[in-house]
Amino acid sequence: MTKKNAFYAQSGGVTAVINASACGVIETARKHKDKIGKVYAGNNGIIGALLEEMIDTSKETPKTIAALKHTPSGAFGSCRYKLKSVEENRAEYERLIEVFKAHNIGYFFYNGGGDSADTCLKISQLSESMGYPIQAIHVPKTVDNDLPFTDNCPGFGSVAKYVAVSTKEAALDVASMCATSTKVFILEVMGRHAGWIAGASALAAQEEGDAPHIILFPEIAFNKEKFLKKVQRTVKKNGYCVIVASEGAQYKDGTFLADAGNVDAFGHKQLGGVAPTLATMVKDEFGYKYHWALADYLQRAARHIASATDVEQAYAVGEAAVEMALAGKNAVMPAIIRGKTKKYKWTIEEAPLAKVANVEKMMPRNYITRDGFGVTEKGREYFAPLIQGEDYPPYKNGVPDYAKLKKVMVEKKLKKKFTI
Amino acid sequence: MTKKNAFYAQSGGVTAVINASACGVIETARKHKDKIGKVYAGNNGIIGALLEEMIDTSKETPKTIAALKHTPSGAFGSCRYKLKSVEENRAEYERLIEVFKAHNIGYFFYNGGGDSADTCLKISQLSESMGYPIQAIHVPKTVDNDLPFTDNCPGFGSVAKYVAVSTKEAALDVASMCATSTKVFILEVMGRHAGWIAGASALAAQEEGDAPHIILFPEIAFNKEKFLKKVQRTVKKNGYCVIVASEGAQYKDGTFLADAGNVDAFGHKQLGGVAPTLATMVKDEFGYKYHWALADYLQRAARHIASATDVEQAYAVGEAAVEMALAGKNAVMPAIIRGKTKKYKWTIEEAPLAKVANVEKMMPRNYITRDGFGVTEKGREYFAPLIQGEDYPPYKNGVPDYAKLKKVMVEKKLKKKFTI
Repeated sequence: MTKKNAFYAQSGGVTAVINASACGVIETARKHKDKIGKVYAGNNGIIGALLEEMIDTSKETPKTIAALKHTPSGAFGSCRYKLKSVEENRAEYERLIEVFKAHNIGYFFYNGGGDSADTCLKISQLSESMGYPIQAIHVPKTVDNDLPFTDNCPGFGSVAKYVAVSTKEAALDVASMCATSTKVFILEVMGRHAGWIAGASALAAQEEGDAPHIILFPEIAFNKEKFLKKVQRTVKKNGYCVIVASEGAQYKDGTFLADAGNVDAFGHKQLGGVAPTLATMVKDEFGYKYHWALADYLQRAARHIASATDVEQAYAVGEAAVEMALAGKNAVMPAIIRGKTKKYKWTIEEAPLAKVANVEKMMPRNYITRDGFGVTEKGREYFAPLIQGEDYPPYKNGVPDYAKLKKVMVEKKLKKKFTI
Repeated sequence: MTKKNAFYAQSGGVTAVINASACGVIETARKHKDKIGKVYAGNNGIIGALLEEMIDTSKETPKTIAALKHTPSGAFGSCRYKLKSVEENRAEYERLIEVFKAHNIGYFFYNGGGDSADTCLKISQLSESMGYPIQAIHVPKTVDNDLPFTDNCPGFGSVAKYVAVSTKEAALDVASMCATSTKVFILEVMGRHAGWIAGASALAAQEEGDAPHIILFPEIAFNKEKFLKKVQRTVKKNGYCVIVASEGAQYKDGTFLADAGNVDAFGHKQLGGVAPTLATMVKDEFGYKYHWALADYLQRAARHIASATDVEQAYAVGEAAVEMALAGKNAVMPAIIRGKTKKYKWTIEEAPLAKVANVEKMMPRNYITRDGFGVTEKGREYFAPLIQGEDYPPYKNGVPDYAKLKKVMVEKKLKKKFTI
């Protein structure tokens, strides 16, 4: 085995623990200097490879690399940039191979979701056919939790914990005010196609009657009448009603609630929000006082309340990716496999990328209650272990002390500029 | 000194630490059983006294009372119910005194903001004139941090910490995505009249160029042109721009940005939101991709990331309130006084309610930078100590284990029903 360098890139929306995977990749590679030379990280993801803008991670101290484990977001920069198909833009793939060749890169670790699994597979295949074979390993990451094969996706457990904790806290607030003030509270969370994140809010409830009282999933067609009835029943019974809504909640015909037609003062269509749409419905029907929150980036960046299980798994998939590369694997992804025992256990196994790419995993129907507004016991059993444990970052002056990289760039070797 | 019972009530919007004050009141009262009989808590605040619905805190175990210290929101229920003036509704005051008399209540601890300081003062004065003198002590609480005399208000430090941490985390997210995606992020925070909460976000920044890049205060008239210029300059310089906006941000003529005229599909005026209004401005002018978050109740309920300093002070004002009562004080409030040394120190002193009631404390102009978009060094010096220290709640099954009260009600003694 000749010594080759490695390329690592972060792709798509970032998470509270994607840097823990980076840490796993880099620390494990550093243990095998006989086989892996340097780890270069794409500056802003795959774009960094296309533009030959790579960060030399060997210039970062062990302490800084270790600090990545408790630092949210993409420390090397990520991007929303999907490579076109080979037929549509062969030049892009050729450029990637050219850059990899110029920098003696033999390992490609791509840290992302479904799209990047697909890219990873293509690079593996093309590099082979182009005579410069690259071992391409996909490192799973997505708050959406929608990758197949793996039991769950690193990044999800922490957003799940954030949502469960926030729902519980906000619900206590509403409960204490509802006698004279707010009766309905709506928390809008991420999840354009799958309701995993909204579903995790069910863990806020410990006993009958606890919030959340209504969860809206993209998987279940929204029925306004049924929804309003449930809100009213809940307010009458408990005095208040807490709703957690996926941003992707939609009507039967596929229209998103968020696109339900708000216009601004100039008649422009507003990029809505499910929460205000629901709040308006409730107010128009019952006149209840409401409040709503939109967590947006706060939920996926909330490293301060990360799940210890998630952090551990995120690190483990990074570590396993390097080990798989050292074992000669190609076009695979380390997947998290749940044990069959009652006590939660997990192992890492190898999933072939051909089976992972371009498949979206939705919430199983039996995780959702019959009325479509809640999570079943089976669903709770799935979610519960993923938010276990707290893994607090260190603090300095009252705020988390997150890693700051030096970001020393690798010297460019190619004369040809590439534009994207 | 004859032994009398005490009445404690929570008032107005709740906080992450108001129950820590309740804990301070109840634990301290329990140490002086020779002088203070039982502590009755108003069920849903002052309404509980009017309706003679009181929770007997003596039925709660020491463990449950201790757990209040790490439990957010108002455990006994709060309310938005302002007593009218004595001239307008003398019957309400008479009823209160009647209830207090029937239950041998000699101490009134009212845990709230400016309005409740005023109520507290009135009850002290009226009870005297009605021949059943009550010692009324105001226990300060408000996330708005707008009470005079006290250096800061319990509840504020924790929301300040939440906002600083969230701003830092969301900013890292945007920074890592801005090459190809979101360039402008807006976090809308509480603060209808005063910009204290928005101002605290400045603590997210550690060095030049760090987020937040723009803070909008209600105290500074919003100038659209200046704002857009600053957004553009920031994006050009840093690649992205993070904005923290007070919900009370307003134009020179007092119009709130949140009321800037959005209408829904039916032509109803929408209860806006500063964040979407700003986002639309930015998009219309520059076309930058944006995201925004509205923290709403999450910010004031976030006990999971409370400031240890805030928790300690909230407890201390509760404890001091009882000590002041035992010392025979009346119509006073324990205030937090900052020491003059460089190292942060604080003590509790007594503030006369006559000087506290109905005064709102705004951000001093010299805490805000000249351009109106940031916080000065002097401002940072004020905010910094208030978010120091973490005080994590215990966890169970991945979510915080907050106190659950038995809420045994005190038996009613009055025949006359009262309606509010």
